[in-house]
Amino acid sequence: MAEALERRVEETRRGTTTIDDLARQVADLKEKVENIKPGADDRISIIVFSGDLDKVLASFVIATGAVAMGMEAVMFFTFWGTPVLRDSKKKVGGKDLMGKMFGFMLPKGRNAIKLSKMNMAGMGTSMMKSLMKKKNVASLDEMLDMAAELGVKIYICEMSMSLMGFKKEEFIDYPNLSYVGVATFLEQAKNSKVQLFI
Amino acid sequence: MAEALERRVEETRRGTTTIDDLARQVADLKEKVENIKPGADDRISIIVFSGDLDKVLASFVIATGAVAMGMEAVMFFTFWGTPVLRDSKKKVGGKDLMGKMFGFMLPKGRNAIKLSKMNMAGMGTSMMKSLMKKKNVASLDEMLDMAAELGVKIYICEMSMSLMGFKKEEFIDYPNLSYVGVATFLEQAKNSKVQLFI
Amino acid sequence: MAEALERRVEETRRGTTTIDDLARQVADLKEKVENIKPGADDRISIIVFSGDLDKVLASFVIATGAVAMGMEAVMFFTFWGTPVLRDSKKKVGGKDLMGKMFGFMLPKGRNAIKLSKMNMAGMGTSMMKSLMKKKNVASLDEMLDMAAELGVKIYICEMSMSLMGFKKEEFIDYPNLSYVGVATFLEQAKNSKVQLFI
Repeated sequence: MAEALERRVEETRRGTTTIDDLARQVADLKEKVENIKPGADDRISIIVFSGDLDKVLASFVIATGAVAMGMEAVMFFTFWGTPVLRDSKKKVGGKDLMGKMFGFMLPKGRNAIKLSKMNMAGMGTSMMKSLMKKKNVASLDEMLDMAAELGVKIYICEMSMSLMGFKKEEFIDYPNLSYVGVATFLEQAKNSKVQLFI
Repeated sequence: MAEALERRVEETRRGTTTIDDLARQVADLKEKVENIKPGADDRISIIVFSGDLDKVLASFVIATGAVAMGMEAVMFFTFWGTPVLRDSKKKVGGKDLMGKMFGFMLPKGRNAIKLSKMNMAGMGTSMMKSLMKKKNVASLDEMLDMAAELGVKIYICEMSMSLMGFKKEEFIDYPNLSYVGVATFLEQAKNSKVQLFI
Repeated sequence: MAEALERRVEETRRGTTTIDDLARQVADLKEKVENIKPGADDRISIIVFSGDLDKVLASFVIATGAVAMGMEAVMFFTFWGTPVLRDSKKKVGGKDLMGKMFGFMLPKGRNAIKLSKMNMAGMGTSMMKSLMKKKNVASLDEMLDMAAELGVKIYICEMSMSLMGFKKEEFIDYPNLSYVGVATFLEQAKNSKVQLFI
C-alpha cells in the first residue's frame, strides 16, 4: 500500500516544479496577458478629404482592394470629398444663399470631378478616363458599384455637410451609407490596421 | 492513516493532468506570450505637412476630436505646415538673405493661410471663415486654444526650421511645444494607433 | 514511511491551489492568448502618390529615418509618384501614341520634379535645392542612394505603369525594386506599424 502511494506521490511530484511554483507562474502570466496591448482589427479606414478624381479613384482602388483581401473598409468623405458623393440627378430646394453658392461652385457628383494635375481645361481628365477604359481600369461609377457590392462602408462628414449647406436628400443611393461626426469615424479608425488621409 | 493519505493524493491528482504536464503547458504559454507583438498606444500622430487652411483645420479637428475620445494626440508641423505656427506679432532679426526671403514669402502665421482650392484671391477663404462662424465651427484660433487646453502635443520640425531660416523666437506661445527631428516624431508615431500625413 | 509520505504530499499541496484549479486557469489563459489580436510588424509602409519634389523628399526623409531607427520601410510609388522613378538617361521605344504623350508630359525622373507650392516657374524649386545643399540636407539623389544602402524596399504600381504606358526598362536601377499590384502593397501595409499616404 505504502509503496503504491509513494509511487503515485512521486509521479505527482516528478519534475522540479511544485504546484505553488506553477501557481505563481500562472499568476504572473495572467497579469502579463492582461497588460498586453491588443492589436487592431482587420480593417482599413480612409479619410477622403480630397475631391480630385485621381485621389478619389485611388481611395476606391485601395478600399475595394482591401476588402478583396478579406479586410473591412470604411471611407469617411469630408471637406472637398463630400460633394463627390452628390447625386447629379437629385434636385434639392430650400437652401440659403451660401448653400446655393456652394452647391453651384462645388462639383455636382463624381462625374464632375477633375484630376489634381494636368487637368488642362478638362482635356487631361477626359484623356485619363478614356485611357482607363482602354486599359480596363474600372471607372469611378464601376468602383462605386463594386464598393457597394463588397460592403465598403461610406461615412459622410456631418460638419462638412453643414458647412457646405448640403442636405441628405442630394447624396447618392448607397446601401451602406451613414452621416456621422468625426468621433464616429475615429472610433473605427483607431482600431483599424490601416488608416490613410487622402 | 494510509487511507487519509491516499484520499489526499487522489485529490491532488484528480483530473487527467499531472504537474509536469501543466508545467510544460505553462512554459509553452510563457513563450507564446513573450512572442506576441504588442498593439499600439491609444495615441494619434499627425504629420501636418500642408499649410493650407482647410487641411490645417482638418488636422486640428481630428487631433482635438481624438483627445476628446480619451486618446493622446501629437502634431508634427513640417515643411509648409511650419510657417502656420509663426506668431504674426513677433519680430525676429538677424536672418540671412534667404531667411528674410522665406520669412517674407511664406504666410506669417495661421491667420494668413488660405484654402487649398477655391481661394479665389482670398474671397473663398473669407467666405469659408464667415461660414464657419455662422455654423458654430471653431476657428483656427479657437482650435489652437482648445488643443492647448486638451494637452495636444505640438512638435515643430527642426529640419524645416533650418531650411526656411525660422528661429524659435518667432513661433507661437503654446504650453506643449517642442522643436524636434523626424526621429523623435517617428518614435511616437510607430507606437500610435493612428498616423496620418496631412 | 507514512510520515515521510505525508510530508511530501503536504509539500505538494501546500498553498490553496489544486492541480485541477491550476489546469482550469491554464486552459483559460490559453484561450485568452489565442484570442489576442497581435500588433503589427516594425515596418513603415508609404504610398507615394504625389510627384511633387517636397512630398517625395518628405517620403524619403521618413523612410530612411525609420530604417535608421531599426524599422523596415516600403515605398509604393503610384500615380504621379511613378514617373519620379524614371531614369532620365534611359530611352525606350515601341510606345503607342498615348504612351508617348504621357512620357513627354510627365516629368522624366526625380531631377525634373517641382515643388507643390512656390515653384514660381522653377525659381522656387532651384532656390530650395540650393538651400538644401547649403544646409546639408540630402538631395533626392543622395536620399535614393541612402535608401538603397539602408535596404528601403521600392514598389512600383503596375496599374499606374499600364495607365501611363511606362515600361520596366525606363525605371532607375535600384537593388530592392519590384513591380507590384496594390494587393501586394496592402499585404505589407496592413501588418505595418505605420502607414502614410503622401
